[in-house]
Amino acid sequence: MPKKVDHEQRRRHIVEALLRIAGARGLDAVSLREVAQEAGVSMGAVQHYFTSKDEMLLYAMRHWLTLGVHQRFTARVRQRLGGLDADARDVLCAFVAEYLPHDDESRADTKVALAFVSRAADQPAVVEAVRPALTGLVETLRGVLASAEPAERQVDKTAEAHRLVALVDGLRLHVLAGSIPYEDALALACRHIDQIILPSAPTAGRPPRPLP
Amino acid sequence: MPKKVDHEQRRRHIVEALLRIAGARGLDAVSLREVAQEAGVSMGAVQHYFTSKDEMLLYAMRHWLTLGVHQRFTARVRQRLGGLDADARDVLCAFVAEYLPHDDESRADTKVALAFVSRAADQPAVVEAVRPALTGLVETLRGVLASAEPAERQVDKTAEAHRLVALVDGLRLHVLAGSIPYEDALALACRHIDQIILPSAPTAGRPPRPLP
Repeated sequence: MPKKVDHEQRRRHIVEALLRIAGARGLDAVSLREVAQEAGVSMGAVQHYFTSKDEMLLYAMRHWLTLGVHQRFTARVRQRLGGLDADARDVLCAFVAEYLPHDDESRADTKVALAFVSRAADQPAVVEAVRPALTGLVETLRGVLASAEPAERQVDKTAEAHRLVALVDGLRLHVLAGSIPYEDALALACRHIDQIILPSAPTAGRPPRPLP
Repeated sequence: MPKKVDHEQRRRHIVEALLRIAGARGLDAVSLREVAQEAGVSMGAVQHYFTSKDEMLLYAMRHWLTLGVHQRFTARVRQRLGGLDADARDVLCAFVAEYLPHDDESRADTKVALAFVSRAADQPAVVEAVRPALTGLVETLRGVLASAEPAERQVDKTAEAHRLVALVDGLRLHVLAGSIPYEDALALACRHIDQIILPSAPTAGRPPRPLP
């Protein structure tokens, strides 16, 4: 079915243009005209693939959440860990190090995520599209946490994974807003990870492990 | 100086109209025309007090951060605690219970805060205006935490206060986006507060204290 594949590619090409605009200037800067210009296609071509701005945004969000951001993000974490024999703590700190805004790409990802959350606040269809992103992230981190600990430990790993995601989402906001330096936020999150993985160890005064 | 007071009142009247629009439909819905209409004044009157949209937004944010949101929020936490003999744990959980979005007012506050953070990502003047809000909140929570513990405990209360603010800011996003129910987010935050205040107590299996 070569025709269908081509259509899918064109839809992706258009929403990737949309995401570049959203990452630079926010979702509200997205218009039919801007998207067509950024994608290098006619406004008619955009309208052929998407009947409304809302439909285009929803498709863009699903694309961004599933293919785009997830693949890029996983690759970045792997690259950061390099060939290291990484334990759960290294993996979680590398995740945070990539997740917090620190370069153009991660800043743009954070801004797009914020824009989608703001939009989800008022639109049920967006809520349904956003929810799997959070539950998927919680599930991934739960798996990493589970690999770190002997099974008999009485820690609710799903709750711990959710707490970690909430913490880093909050830090992401603070770093994006310039309220806390990236390095401080990363160190705070890695101390938190140490506490989850080694909760009996004293946290104050313990020499920090090197960040990934 | 009655004339000056009057000017201040008019500026506040205008930015309160702006904040109502931002809470309902986001900062990008804010225009000179919309603000004038919501405030019930002419566009010329708005332009008399603010030479640009950016100046109006910056004034609105400062007003919202200092007078508006802080006073209302403190009153709501006090009301929630009622005449109770509240300990630090009760105060912190009451803070979280009010801070997380759960009614029109707290949802609007959350959306305005998000909109300002997004804007701060690109504008240094907004960063400078946002930063005292975070440091003020961290300082307030640090004071509450300090009241809970004997001085010899080796806990960095500023770091703990910052971790708590980041956690509840992340949960605020998740509740606003509909990814987690308000009650679950509140329970997660209160367990976290229990861990900070009573870190030696086992958290799993302990009966939850009633939420404020």
